[in-house]
Amino acid sequence: MTQMESARAGKITEEMEIAARKEGVSAEYIRAGVAEGTIVIPKNKNRRRSNICAIGKGLSVKVNALIGTSNDRAQRDMEASKLRIAEEAGCDSFMDLSTGGDIDEMRRQTLRLANVAVGCVPLYQAGVNAIKKDGGVVNMKPDDLFDIIEQQAADGMDFMAIHSALSMDIIETLRRTGRVTEIVSRGGSFMTAWMLHNQRENPLYEQFDRLLDIMRRHDVTLSIGDAVRPGCTADSLDAIQLKGLILAGELAKRALDAGVQVMIEGPGHVPLNHIESTLLLQKRLCHDVPYFILGFLSTDIAPGYDNITAAIGGAWAGLHGADFICYLTPAEHLGLPNEEDVRTGVISAKIAANAADVSRKRNGAWERALEMSKARAALDVNRQIELAMYPDRLSAAGHDGGKCEVCGEKCACQIAAEYFGAA
Amino acid sequence: MTQMESARAGKITEEMEIAARKEGVSAEYIRAGVAEGTIVIPKNKNRRRSNICAIGKGLSVKVNALIGTSNDRAQRDMEASKLRIAEEAGCDSFMDLSTGGDIDEMRRQTLRLANVAVGCVPLYQAGVNAIKKDGGVVNMKPDDLFDIIEQQAADGMDFMAIHSALSMDIIETLRRTGRVTEIVSRGGSFMTAWMLHNQRENPLYEQFDRLLDIMRRHDVTLSIGDAVRPGCTADSLDAIQLKGLILAGELAKRALDAGVQVMIEGPGHVPLNHIESTLLLQKRLCHDVPYFILGFLSTDIAPGYDNITAAIGGAWAGLHGADFICYLTPAEHLGLPNEEDVRTGVISAKIAANAADVSRKRNGAWERALEMSKARAALDVNRQIELAMYPDRLSAAGHDGGKCEVCGEKCACQIAAEYFGAA
Repeated sequence: MTQMESARAGKITEEMEIAARKEGVSAEYIRAGVAEGTIVIPKNKNRRRSNICAIGKGLSVKVNALIGTSNDRAQRDMEASKLRIAEEAGCDSFMDLSTGGDIDEMRRQTLRLANVAVGCVPLYQAGVNAIKKDGGVVNMKPDDLFDIIEQQAADGMDFMAIHSALSMDIIETLRRTGRVTEIVSRGGSFMTAWMLHNQRENPLYEQFDRLLDIMRRHDVTLSIGDAVRPGCTADSLDAIQLKGLILAGELAKRALDAGVQVMIEGPGHVPLNHIESTLLLQKRLCHDVPYFILGFLSTDIAPGYDNITAAIGGAWAGLHGADFICYLTPAEHLGLPNEEDVRTGVISAKIAANAADVSRKRNGAWERALEMSKARAALDVNRQIELAMYPDRLSAAGHDGGKCEVCGEKCACQIAAEYFGAA
Repeated sequence: MTQMESARAGKITEEMEIAARKEGVSAEYIRAGVAEGTIVIPKNKNRRRSNICAIGKGLSVKVNALIGTSNDRAQRDMEASKLRIAEEAGCDSFMDLSTGGDIDEMRRQTLRLANVAVGCVPLYQAGVNAIKKDGGVVNMKPDDLFDIIEQQAADGMDFMAIHSALSMDIIETLRRTGRVTEIVSRGGSFMTAWMLHNQRENPLYEQFDRLLDIMRRHDVTLSIGDAVRPGCTADSLDAIQLKGLILAGELAKRALDAGVQVMIEGPGHVPLNHIESTLLLQKRLCHDVPYFILGFLSTDIAPGYDNITAAIGGAWAGLHGADFICYLTPAEHLGLPNEEDVRTGVISAKIAANAADVSRKRNGAWERALEMSKARAALDVNRQIELAMYPDRLSAAGHDGGKCEVCGEKCACQIAAEYFGAA
């Protein structure tokens, strides 16, 4: 039985138990959420691992890291190193976006090394194969694409981003209305090129039931890819994004009806004043299934520092209901990230997630912040090191009897403690 | 005449002209804002400089950097280097918080080197002097404190953080109610120790008219220090903060009545779900004078990365009305920042300010983001480098005909452009 079938049959699985313990909620809460579709547990039935997490309503915000090769850089050992660094920094999942070198072997390496959920975008491999074998993405055969989805599911992929929420109707609307950055989703651009060249409907939309059947058989969580997400703040909440969202909502409902765990991939570039409305519409139109956001990038003009622009938007999206944040590294808009970029990306996204969790009092985040504050008032640096998300810099700073060099002898906390007593 | 006297007499000063050009608004708009107190132009009449900015209602969010020596590290050349780095990174002002070495010489160096507004906290020097000469902060003589304020104003300080919004009534309330981190403001702790030891009212509150007279004579902008700001998210919006805010509002009104430019210093640690209410109350109670925030730090548990926790809170504060953001560096809660920390701190705060400016369409921020997005759609990397806030990493990345290594040959923007034409 799949996680959802078990949940709907009233059965609590081992994975629900593990996820519930990790989250500090009851297993029954997780089961009910999986049954109704407001919570997902990405966990392919063909792969074993010990670190399981649940994503969705009432839970802490989770963080995804991206790894993968490209044509220009296909070094599996570097990707293995990035994977270790990201998992140590606390990411809750990976997506392997490889498009270069031996993609099959790369995927299997990721599945072997990672002890967290792993996702992928099958359309990338299908597109790359079509470029190599058939002379271009536009010559890709739908059956080949479905074969790759089946293969990746059989290999143990826990979730897959699939660009089903893209139709001829949406592309025609885009042609009429235009936007600043037409399509920035790579999968979305592959499929758009294929559809326009062949003048045929998107097979991932047209044959959605065939897709759901593969997902259900291997218990893969479907992540409906955001093929027409805005590629800049100026395109945010435009007609194209909303049409994509409406279609994603329809497909999410069909997935839920078919007993397939489903989440929706979100933007992208979102100005601060659009975040609340974006999340409201996403949840409203997509039946409250979990939302997996790419950012949100809060400004367009800081390439090289998009871990920060995305931490700003990600935290606020988390407050307003985003369940799952895809990291952005400082290399976003520049090139592929190196190891240090990956670590910075995970840390930035985890801080954003924690800021949302503190304000919503999820999974002990409020209590941990409170303990840290008490440790600061008490000048107890050892306890602060225990409680810090990333204690490396605090440990390295060197403190004299609890006092840091900011105030030195003129420590505000110490002066206050003398007059008010310990907090 | 002071800036405010000129503004109220209907006269547009040279400084208003410069600030208006920089901001893309009319000089009359700036004049009217200065006259009513919703805009300040920190500019001491005793110091000349060419870079003038206005802070407040309807304007872009400004960024302040902190420099200064401590007992443990009093190297003027390092502070000079930090100053250069911060100004290059685009900070709009400095506060010199020196407490170690020759404080007078350090202050004069900062005033000499900086071409932006400079502020300070006179109570620090007065406290340090009292520790050295009189055996402790509690032995500080009020007249000595006012002499230092007068001296620093005569030296050319453009704004000063003064801890007037602290009274015996507030301290007694704090004694009764308690909080997690009693007092984290260094100036606040100095003054609290003095008041409790001497059982006397705060001279900066009691002799507020004397203070206003000094500010007006030298045209120093008063920044009412946040002596009882929350030192952790758990203390946010507690009774003590609100009492401090109410008193700050009363004092702001007195400053406006006396023709003194005034702004209010804000927290500090603020959970995401408190930001909108915090700004609303600040502006409501303080007569819409400009707000100068320290953060906001959106979580407590990320020491070593507080430039990110503060970028998250700062951007949202900007959206909700904060006018002026004090940077936090990665060294916050650890020690004094080094040069690299300072650069990272300014960049992080500037990104937060820009995110707020983009969404509120201030000072061309929206248009610049739009131009960047068009340059991305057109794969025009040279134009992207022109438009980036910090082009260093983008310039270094190396791009092949506009395509970056993320997609390589499978560039989404390029594929879309082929089918949709140039944006």
